[in-house]
Amino acid sequence: MPKATYLDYAAATPLEKRVLAAMEPYFTENFHNPSASYLAARRSRQALQDARAYVAGYLGARPSEIIFTAGGTEANNLAIQGVMRRFPGGELLVSSLEHDSILAPAGLFKSKQIPATTKGVVDLAAAARLITERTVLISVAWVNSELGTLQPLKEIIRLVEKIRHQRLKRGQTLPLYMHTDAAQAATYFELKVARLRIDLMSINGGKIYGPKQSGALYVRAGTLLKPLILGGGQESSYRSGTENVAGCVGLAKALQIVQVRREAEFKRLTELRDLFIFGLQKQVRGAVVTGVGAPRAPHIVHVSFAEIDGERLMMQLDELGIQCAVGSACSASRDEPSHVLLAIGMDETTARSSLRFSLGQSSKKGDILKTVKALKKLVLTS
Amino acid sequence: MPKATYLDYAAATPLEKRVLAAMEPYFTENFHNPSASYLAARRSRQALQDARAYVAGYLGARPSEIIFTAGGTEANNLAIQGVMRRFPGGELLVSSLEHDSILAPAGLFKSKQIPATTKGVVDLAAAARLITERTVLISVAWVNSELGTLQPLKEIIRLVEKIRHQRLKRGQTLPLYMHTDAAQAATYFELKVARLRIDLMSINGGKIYGPKQSGALYVRAGTLLKPLILGGGQESSYRSGTENVAGCVGLAKALQIVQVRREAEFKRLTELRDLFIFGLQKQVRGAVVTGVGAPRAPHIVHVSFAEIDGERLMMQLDELGIQCAVGSACSASRDEPSHVLLAIGMDETTARSSLRFSLGQSSKKGDILKTVKALKKLVLTS
Repeated sequence: MPKATYLDYAAATPLEKRVLAAMEPYFTENFHNPSASYLAARRSRQALQDARAYVAGYLGARPSEIIFTAGGTEANNLAIQGVMRRFPGGELLVSSLEHDSILAPAGLFKSKQIPATTKGVVDLAAAARLITERTVLISVAWVNSELGTLQPLKEIIRLVEKIRHQRLKRGQTLPLYMHTDAAQAATYFELKVARLRIDLMSINGGKIYGPKQSGALYVRAGTLLKPLILGGGQESSYRSGTENVAGCVGLAKALQIVQVRREAEFKRLTELRDLFIFGLQKQVRGAVVTGVGAPRAPHIVHVSFAEIDGERLMMQLDELGIQCAVGSACSASRDEPSHVLLAIGMDETTARSSLRFSLGQSSKKGDILKTVKALKKLVLTS
Repeated sequence: MPKATYLDYAAATPLEKRVLAAMEPYFTENFHNPSASYLAARRSRQALQDARAYVAGYLGARPSEIIFTAGGTEANNLAIQGVMRRFPGGELLVSSLEHDSILAPAGLFKSKQIPATTKGVVDLAAAARLITERTVLISVAWVNSELGTLQPLKEIIRLVEKIRHQRLKRGQTLPLYMHTDAAQAATYFELKVARLRIDLMSINGGKIYGPKQSGALYVRAGTLLKPLILGGGQESSYRSGTENVAGCVGLAKALQIVQVRREAEFKRLTELRDLFIFGLQKQVRGAVVTGVGAPRAPHIVHVSFAEIDGERLMMQLDELGIQCAVGSACSASRDEPSHVLLAIGMDETTARSSLRFSLGQSSKKGDILKTVKALKKLVLTS
């Protein structure tokens, strides 16, 4: 069987062999509970501390600001539920383009959605209008996981800081925190939290060649939130449960690998992506790339094919050895069109005729040419 | 360096090599997101379904009744928080001997604790008195993780069923659910949920030679609870987040291995445990085994050493290559004496002079004899 052309890196990344090698000692040998007191257990604890220090350094944060979680969804839930339960009278503002792991917990609280433009970017002016006296948290993803569009985090944070300043002057004590889900950004962007001036940031090992259900939430010192999972008090009481040392070591190692190749991969995939977009526009009848013109990450291309059923097209591509996504695979299979596509004003028919291609480590020029060629043919014959 | 005598199996178990081998294909090869639709992803989904079916079969349950979680603490939190948030007016009853992963979430709700006897067993008569019209959930662990004592689950369930019957007759619609944390029971007892007539049961991969932060919550069909972590709707919407396929496969494989050797290990460790208790009582001056006379699991022995500092004794044993626990290592290091010991009426000095030894796969007669000998000498010279 020939190797498949995998174009669904935004849904899952393979674990890097070097990451698995880094994790392995913590499965069978150094398996000890990091909270135990004998020497061998202190070695587990040291490995966990080293992993935490690495992740913190990567983000330009302090180790005490890193909470290891079991995945990106948990990190997002901890950010949203943690802050909103800490400030029961507060209001939440999220973008309408967020992942379900933001929108679903947001639904538990008093929350509003910031509308987005047709290019797949949150509407800044609308965000400014929607912030009230009671807003305590704003959450906007760095890179949209379905469209690949970059969100105007810096501008939103500037707005947040202005409002904080106004509240301070008025003697209002309610904080206003800014959270970003960096799951799709961590591979290609420098995640320096101090430069970004962000309060909370989620990262997800399963999307950066690390282990699935590994992840972390950065919580800036002084940010107030409640834990989601209570018990033995691990992770400074923000996430109880015997620590997944292997998973935390794997997350740190994945970040290390990603950092080394970030700039080169950014450049390489940007070129491949643009080649892909060019090919789609020139050769595939009726193909419309979503959000063209908006700033975007190098690895995600969302495209609609007029009046062609996306699900069927995906299956046909799969038969040709090309793997891509119908909407976002991050939600358990459902039959509704993606809320993200509807939020940018796409009609239901167009939404149902669209696919997401996401590039990564194994993607080569040949994969792009093969995919464009296959799409050209499939669209003509359907 | 000689191989250490590891006597802290209740805190952490090494991952079985066969478990790691079963997990490995799902790290780098079959890494695909189980929610994606192409063939390779359907293979990940199949592996997840097979793991779920295995765990369900092991418990005598249906696959739809198994929710995979990231560990035992999360499973316990889902049981407690999930039911209590579903029934906001309800009351919770937990034993005073529960693990922090039960007691801490219990503290978020209207809850009461069932007192325990000095033998380390919950007081049944007290439980009967503490159940009110508003009680919606009772949680009592199967095996106490610090003392190894078995709890009278059958008797409590009989009581629960009597009360359910009375409520039915009165037309009261509030359910009364029974949960048990089976983390320390899963290796040595048959976990048949139908025979036990339990509604919710937590299992923990990290204590049964499976991967850390793998686990499951059994939820009997018809039991109502809210999810803790919301998002893409995985695990029938009870635990969102891209599934940790390797972890779920590992949990199922660990159960399979444990099942094959359960009866032989039960017998073997019971003999070792009794040899240990006998040795402690006959040879170690002032040693008092906690809960003697109560029914107990084969692998945990808790013992106090009159007026000797437990922490120091543990360190001295560690220098001799013997690893054991001061209290429960499952809680992040703290300086308070264990709440379990105080709950069975132990004074603080005795609590601080106690250690937990827990046996497992590698434990041999030589380890027991070596430990008794070391303790005899250390106690005499301290």
